[in-house]
Amino acid sequence: MSQKIIITIGREFGSGGREIGKKLAENMGIDFYDKELITLAAKESGMSKEVFESIDETATSSLLYSLSLGNYRGMPGTVEMPLNDKLFLFQSNVIKEAAQKGSCVIVGRCADYILRKDLNSVHLFIHAPMVHRIERISKLHNISSKEAEEMIKKVDKKRAAYYNFYSSKRWGSISNFHLCVDSSVLGVEGTAEVLQLFAEKYAQK
Amino acid sequence: MSQKIIITIGREFGSGGREIGKKLAENMGIDFYDKELITLAAKESGMSKEVFESIDETATSSLLYSLSLGNYRGMPGTVEMPLNDKLFLFQSNVIKEAAQKGSCVIVGRCADYILRKDLNSVHLFIHAPMVHRIERISKLHNISSKEAEEMIKKVDKKRAAYYNFYSSKRWGSISNFHLCVDSSVLGVEGTAEVLQLFAEKYAQK
Repeated sequence: MSQKIIITIGREFGSGGREIGKKLAENMGIDFYDKELITLAAKESGMSKEVFESIDETATSSLLYSLSLGNYRGMPGTVEMPLNDKLFLFQSNVIKEAAQKGSCVIVGRCADYILRKDLNSVHLFIHAPMVHRIERISKLHNISSKEAEEMIKKVDKKRAAYYNFYSSKRWGSISNFHLCVDSSVLGVEGTAEVLQLFAEKYAQK
Repeated sequence: MSQKIIITIGREFGSGGREIGKKLAENMGIDFYDKELITLAAKESGMSKEVFESIDETATSSLLYSLSLGNYRGMPGTVEMPLNDKLFLFQSNVIKEAAQKGSCVIVGRCADYILRKDLNSVHLFIHAPMVHRIERISKLHNISSKEAEEMIKKVDKKRAAYYNFYSSKRWGSISNFHLCVDSSVLGVEGTAEVLQLFAEKYAQK
């Protein structure tokens, strides 16, 4: 590669987006960030990793936000920021620092939005038909198809709410991404290969 | 390639979708259909090519449809089908026949929907940010940026209405496609190269 490249990956739950991102990072010999972002955000904030883990990719609910606004700490007139917003801010910093450091793959967490003005960043989205995602998740977690479907819908709803809340854009909309791919067509290896060609050609420009 | 492959391409106006499709077909040495579909549909129907051309990728308006329903021809109780619907039907037949014949690239005209059950078909969508499309269209037609933007919005609206009317799906929605790509990232040649890798890997499966 002739220059630094940051690859952000948005993904539907059960599409294998994380696995494809990991494979892509391995093949290209660059860093990979997914859950690692929580550890780094916790470290930067001095807060508990476990607390951040429990609210990862969760938007602040309006109820929580109201409670927080009503919950004065310290000087009257100051408000305590909801935990979700704190995690978002620390994670944003960590994502920007990772992008500064060198070529990498970053999965989820509005990274495409956070790095939307970074000219070395390429933004990808991985999806798959529901039937394939159900099959993958029910095998992975050893649960029934019905349970897998419920889980998928719940996680995707949470991810969409998180993205829409913090980015003021629409999750999974074509115009947010440089390339969107259905992972059920070529599987993990094949999809990673196509994404690598796209990313490397972008880095050569 | 180890087997027949049909590549359908949906595209935003001004994204260079037709040019990329043509390049892809040339590189792969397979047939290419775009405006050619009108000539073939006209031939099959015995109707005028010019009439079909004037309504290409245009949905039947509800007004036209009502007029048509009220316009009895032949036996009482029979109705004359609107021209747009006739073109859609003849074009659908032509698309299915082309897909039967051999490997090819088919641009627009709901081909992804018409061939949704064809296991040799891969469905692609090409888009680009408005600013790039305006630049391309204003150069191509030697018009102002404002005129180009109006033209783009008008054609995309027409294409969306056509797709939504005949497919009962939403135009430009990620889940309709195996791969969606922003052509402004790699341009015509580079995009065609990535699409070729995707299509050839699909055909090898």
